[in-house]
Amino acid sequence: MITSTGNAQVRELVKLMKKSRERDRQNVFLVEGPRMTGELLDDREWQKQIQKVYFSESFTKKSGNLTEAFVRQCRTEILSDSVFEYVSDTKTPQGILAVVERRTYSRDDILRDLSGQGRAPFVIVLDNLQDPGNMGTVFRTAEAAGATGILMSSDCVDIYNPKVVRSTMGALFRVPFCRVEDLPESVEDLKKAGIRVYAAHLEGKNPYDREDYRGGTAFLIGNEGNGLREEVASCADCRIRIPMEGKAESLNAAVAAAVLMFEAGRQRRQ
Amino acid sequence: MITSTGNAQVRELVKLMKKSRERDRQNVFLVEGPRMTGELLDDREWQKQIQKVYFSESFTKKSGNLTEAFVRQCRTEILSDSVFEYVSDTKTPQGILAVVERRTYSRDDILRDLSGQGRAPFVIVLDNLQDPGNMGTVFRTAEAAGATGILMSSDCVDIYNPKVVRSTMGALFRVPFCRVEDLPESVEDLKKAGIRVYAAHLEGKNPYDREDYRGGTAFLIGNEGNGLREEVASCADCRIRIPMEGKAESLNAAVAAAVLMFEAGRQRRQ
Repeated sequence: MITSTGNAQVRELVKLMKKSRERDRQNVFLVEGPRMTGELLDDREWQKQIQKVYFSESFTKKSGNLTEAFVRQCRTEILSDSVFEYVSDTKTPQGILAVVERRTYSRDDILRDLSGQGRAPFVIVLDNLQDPGNMGTVFRTAEAAGATGILMSSDCVDIYNPKVVRSTMGALFRVPFCRVEDLPESVEDLKKAGIRVYAAHLEGKNPYDREDYRGGTAFLIGNEGNGLREEVASCADCRIRIPMEGKAESLNAAVAAAVLMFEAGRQRRQ
Repeated sequence: MITSTGNAQVRELVKLMKKSRERDRQNVFLVEGPRMTGELLDDREWQKQIQKVYFSESFTKKSGNLTEAFVRQCRTEILSDSVFEYVSDTKTPQGILAVVERRTYSRDDILRDLSGQGRAPFVIVLDNLQDPGNMGTVFRTAEAAGATGILMSSDCVDIYNPKVVRSTMGALFRVPFCRVEDLPESVEDLKKAGIRVYAAHLEGKNPYDREDYRGGTAFLIGNEGNGLREEVASCADCRIRIPMEGKAESLNAAVAAAVLMFEAGRQRRQ
């Protein structure tokens, strides 16, 4: 059991928790809590990606079965409760933390219907989304609404930020995504693949619920404060707006994305 | 100008910022930033509620016009920049902060269509919603979707929590709301007023998009982790579910509310 915060592994974990550059360099991310680490263990592909699992001492006593399941499959280590607290990103640590190697997805992965029902591609494109909670919520909502994947500009908030990972509620493990340097170019690629691209835009002409999203569809969603950059919005086939009442000037970005995604989901169920 | 954090007014402001009980006792709340305080000044009813406005020294220099507008209408005070930072709830304080007396709304207020188009009541009912960001987002979304008001259980997060106030983006000033001790009783009152009550529920029988929300409508939205309490859900005329794909088990509470509200908005625009 590791009992000192000066331990080399502990110092390493803290670096991975706090520094996106270090996570990028090692091509890993951290997953906390029994629920999300348990999902990794239950998925054959993800299980192979687990590099090491850390438990707090009291977790091993309280959750013997889950501890055993990890010990059988992965490299593991026990930390004293106070060292675990020191490492954890949350106020009330749940006592289990995994270092996980990243998976990468191709453009084809984000267009493929994983439900096996052969449905048309349904892609969410994020331009400079900055809030970790919004990013996590978009993943969670995208999975529920039946999106096939997410495309994001390289200046979006780090998807492997611990708060983002947590707020995806596991959707991060299941929704394929690509981070791209040149978003307009990637949007043009979508169009070449026969996907109709809609920009959520305050100045959009058509209300969002007057379009047909049953074919290949992509929604462009912009930054929280500034909306879509013009060079991204101008790639769209069509600008759509979400009609708003009262003096509301805009919607939260994750809410706007949800409204569009569930309208597409609604149409595809008809 | 106040230059000491030991000043009695400063100590008072910090108490109001941090303690919901003190805000309740004085029947006030705090509003930060030029945009949201500006909305108070622009609204005749709200302007009357402003008790005092505090500026940072540099704000008065940088934003002379807005400062002047407040000085003409309200009691004001200047704080040194460091004292303002000490008081502010945000990491990068914008230099203006108002102490505002609360307004109270009747049940009739939350049923009345403020747009003057005489539309049927459209109420959001929140049961034990806990996350400040979610609460703010629900207000912001409710205004945009055309809800007539919000009803909430007394154990919801404090609506006057500075983070809630901020994340409503001003919708708090425009969407009437009531906090009630006995939520099931209030829901029964809605039903007596001819409003059809829908519970968003994972075990709902009907998909949400198969119901007609053009008449008087209320949506019951539950706690982030536990959903609706059974004693609240059982008041509903009908349990509806939002169909979900993949392994998603639930939606973020503010997202679920948004999907329902915009479906109602969509139907009401047809």
